[in-house]
Amino acid sequence: MDALSPTPRTTVRRGRDRAVSDRAALHALLADGLVAHLGVDVGEGAGRHPVVLPCAYAVDLDGPDDGGTLYVHGSVAARWLVGATDTTVCVTVTELDGLVLARSGFHHSMNYRSAVVIGVARPVTDDDERVRALDAIVDHLAPGRSATLRPATRKELAATAVLAVPLREASMKTRAGAPVDDPADVAAGGWAGHVPVRRTVGAAVPDAETREPVPAHVELLTDPREVVQLSAR
Amino acid sequence: MDALSPTPRTTVRRGRDRAVSDRAALHALLADGLVAHLGVDVGEGAGRHPVVLPCAYAVDLDGPDDGGTLYVHGSVAARWLVGATDTTVCVTVTELDGLVLARSGFHHSMNYRSAVVIGVARPVTDDDERVRALDAIVDHLAPGRSATLRPATRKELAATAVLAVPLREASMKTRAGAPVDDPADVAAGGWAGHVPVRRTVGAAVPDAETREPVPAHVELLTDPREVVQLSAR
Repeated sequence: MDALSPTPRTTVRRGRDRAVSDRAALHALLADGLVAHLGVDVGEGAGRHPVVLPCAYAVDLDGPDDGGTLYVHGSVAARWLVGATDTTVCVTVTELDGLVLARSGFHHSMNYRSAVVIGVARPVTDDDERVRALDAIVDHLAPGRSATLRPATRKELAATAVLAVPLREASMKTRAGAPVDDPADVAAGGWAGHVPVRRTVGAAVPDAETREPVPAHVELLTDPREVVQLSAR
Repeated sequence: MDALSPTPRTTVRRGRDRAVSDRAALHALLADGLVAHLGVDVGEGAGRHPVVLPCAYAVDLDGPDDGGTLYVHGSVAARWLVGATDTTVCVTVTELDGLVLARSGFHHSMNYRSAVVIGVARPVTDDDERVRALDAIVDHLAPGRSATLRPATRKELAATAVLAVPLREASMKTRAGAPVDDPADVAAGGWAGHVPVRRTVGAAVPDAETREPVPAHVELLTDPREVVQLSAR
């Protein structure tokens, strides 16, 4: 397996059993996630502090950066985006998979997958790469959708900044399954277990001006169990 | 309505229409969320950069800090937690509510609620406050559960650090509903709409040693629609 953490700052120190050094698991998580949390430093001198903002993202494993490229975008007028450019940022993607209810408060936990990517945010200036990145962000929300849309206008492209973060420096942690309790607590009895959590996608809601049927690439987003449930009402 | 953003650094600058200055909405989001993303600065000098980590949390609106208190906890040996103590941190809680599929890539978006809390992380040293905070974190996962558990041992408490962040400096952004397209794109036609996303909780899975039935406070976590769906299989 390919190690995910080539540098000390992304080496997982706590909970080593929860670290996964497998690029495939990282890529699968980044494909599953929809929201990234981007940490950037803002302010000057002693007043400098991190700000964490949720954002859409996309990954291009064949992107120009070492290990592949993670893209985020925003308005050229967004202060966080301007501040992040050419600085070291942290992009974290977390999927919550369950609640872990142990026999002691101490051993309560969550089942989750989380990736932490640290790197210098490169401003994407090449127009071809910018268009590919923006299409990838749309297709990350709804695979296949970008091909159904008109191209971005010059004005839209001029209003949008794209940042690229290399995937080289990444760490991943996962937890799955049952709680791990102290033997004395198990002997004392009491209910313990875990509760699965997942994200479900409901049926598409067309906007007021839409006359067309829901396209296939949008239908595919909806969890089939949600459709069964809705039709059973 | 009580303003959420008393200082410039939590004033929402982009997308002012998406800022919500309502403490009740902030509190509701913090009650709905399960995972916070905590941003802390690590490293020294020019190498200083943010790290963003997912963590469990709880809120005590009657806590000792201005605006109420948000608690996170971790191992006393965790470097991020040691590094965060007495520094300015950012705690962000995001709930994804939907995908917004517009007629142009530019107007694609997500429906979400997100809170950004910035404050100096106070180490909680008072034992009563520490126990209350740890119980609140358990009860945030599963309301009512802490009362069913044995008290924390001295050893467990000694191994656990608790940080408190004041809720005073908080901003919130929300987006809901249909896409907003350019009139020319609406006139040109094409499907647009939004796709609801929500978190569902499945049936509890007892661990291998559990002989007791699932307690009521755990049953209550499970989305009733999930149970209907499972029983219909």
